[in-house]
Amino acid sequence: MPLLVTGSIAIDTVTTPYGKRENCLGGSATYFSMAASFFCPVRLVGVIGSDCPFNLNQIFAGRNVDLRGLEVRNFAKTFRWKGSYHNSSANAITENIELNVIAEKPPIVPAEFKDSKFVFLANTAPVLQMQLLEQIERPAFVAADTMTCWIDSRKDDLLQLLKRIDCLIINSEEAKALAKQANLIKAADAILKMGPKIIIIKKGEAGSLLASQQGDKFILPAYPAPDVKDPTGAGDSFAGGFMGYLAGNEKTDLSFMKQAVAYGTVLASFAISEFSLDGLSKVSRDDIDLRFAELQNLVKF
Amino acid sequence: MPLLVTGSIAIDTVTTPYGKRENCLGGSATYFSMAASFFCPVRLVGVIGSDCPFNLNQIFAGRNVDLRGLEVRNFAKTFRWKGSYHNSSANAITENIELNVIAEKPPIVPAEFKDSKFVFLANTAPVLQMQLLEQIERPAFVAADTMTCWIDSRKDDLLQLLKRIDCLIINSEEAKALAKQANLIKAADAILKMGPKIIIIKKGEAGSLLASQQGDKFILPAYPAPDVKDPTGAGDSFAGGFMGYLAGNEKTDLSFMKQAVAYGTVLASFAISEFSLDGLSKVSRDDIDLRFAELQNLVKF
Repeated sequence: MPLLVTGSIAIDTVTTPYGKRENCLGGSATYFSMAASFFCPVRLVGVIGSDCPFNLNQIFAGRNVDLRGLEVRNFAKTFRWKGSYHNSSANAITENIELNVIAEKPPIVPAEFKDSKFVFLANTAPVLQMQLLEQIERPAFVAADTMTCWIDSRKDDLLQLLKRIDCLIINSEEAKALAKQANLIKAADAILKMGPKIIIIKKGEAGSLLASQQGDKFILPAYPAPDVKDPTGAGDSFAGGFMGYLAGNEKTDLSFMKQAVAYGTVLASFAISEFSLDGLSKVSRDDIDLRFAELQNLVKF
Repeated sequence: MPLLVTGSIAIDTVTTPYGKRENCLGGSATYFSMAASFFCPVRLVGVIGSDCPFNLNQIFAGRNVDLRGLEVRNFAKTFRWKGSYHNSSANAITENIELNVIAEKPPIVPAEFKDSKFVFLANTAPVLQMQLLEQIERPAFVAADTMTCWIDSRKDDLLQLLKRIDCLIINSEEAKALAKQANLIKAADAILKMGPKIIIIKKGEAGSLLASQQGDKFILPAYPAPDVKDPTGAGDSFAGGFMGYLAGNEKTDLSFMKQAVAYGTVLASFAISEFSLDGLSKVSRDDIDLRFAELQNLVKF
């Protein structure tokens, strides 16, 4: 079943202890789509400026990613992000951000995409996430990401959005800020009361936690990766693997949800093994399934 | 099979976001013994001053803890530690430390304890750990802890010790310092080359990692505890649960080792749920087995 994603396509400049990569491809929708495309057809909705140096048709060639929702806006500039990572920390320091086309009106969801059942709203202003969601006719399972700046500055919009989605996928700091609660278990329970049936908290090197309104809990460590060259895109690749697996199987019950978290973890581990999309673009579905089995074995006792 | 532990008995003063407890019972051997006693007979070797306000016979009453190795040294003062925890972090800030009797000569291992097969050397100067170990006739499985100050100041002694033990149980910061390597997987492999067959790295809220010279790896998240009142003793309770389970079963093969890590995780989760020994002392073996099963279920996919 096709999976629709709305999010950013970015020109990134990234410095990590392993080196520096200038003007490379980044963005939430890019990482998400690449990760999800291993499991299901992906429908990408995003906008770039006419200055964008990347040929996305070529980058996604041979993958099941439908780019009819990619708008190339004339006289606009592509979103740019510059950041760095220090001491193997997964937390980026943003050095420069140019929202450019991202700050303008959102892209239109093409008519052919409006029947999408599985939807992921990558991080942007909650009001824009809502406008994008409203263009989908009858979504069956909607997940979203957000970030601390929206929790701080657009809390009311975000609370409206939370009532309309099935699953929120955020990191520890965002969960603590949203719930105003330092303990993540309590934070998860508090956020579930705000609307989503499922919350997934990404804890970076500490793995992830899934909790449901039914009281289910699932915890999984991160894959113990010996090489982390560039943590950029880990969260979006996680979300892509998670949502891709669910959409590919057309299932959202707990056992599939747990496996989907594990696939998300695996995709994130490949994403961070190289700069930009290099880690994700060189793996095969077999590599992914092998690492999934390895992770399953690593935590079994 | 009895398990011998050498370590400290302390008078702690602890402040956490949940409150303050003055002059309460602490110390590595204390937490370790309480945790291990759920699984096997424990032989405690330690020393206190004649000022010690705690009746350890009473504290361990009804538990299988042999205190014949507890020396009450006249004219000496008990080890004291004062520390605090902030913002739910598991890392203590030491405000005051009085080594007192701990800085003097180590206690003697009683003749009745010299046949011990399972041995845990809690953190102290590596040369003292070696002297204590040399008093055991034919140990079969020896584990030890250490801390950053010994890694920095007594590296040679520590490297000697590492050749004599089977298992090193340390935290992330210690592993990084010992291996001079920020990536924990690489750090684990580097430390295994220094001697121990098994390394366990405790990552606090991020769980733990076990690696062996044979190339086995096992990762387990921390138990997702909603209430963490006092993180003191988490590491020693983990080690106690781990070593206690192995000694109780007289097994050290990988499948038991994994289960032992899970029992260690469970004991640590109970230890931190209350101040001092209160968390450990009020649980039953049934509570422990129930949480073990819960943990097994939480990570299964």
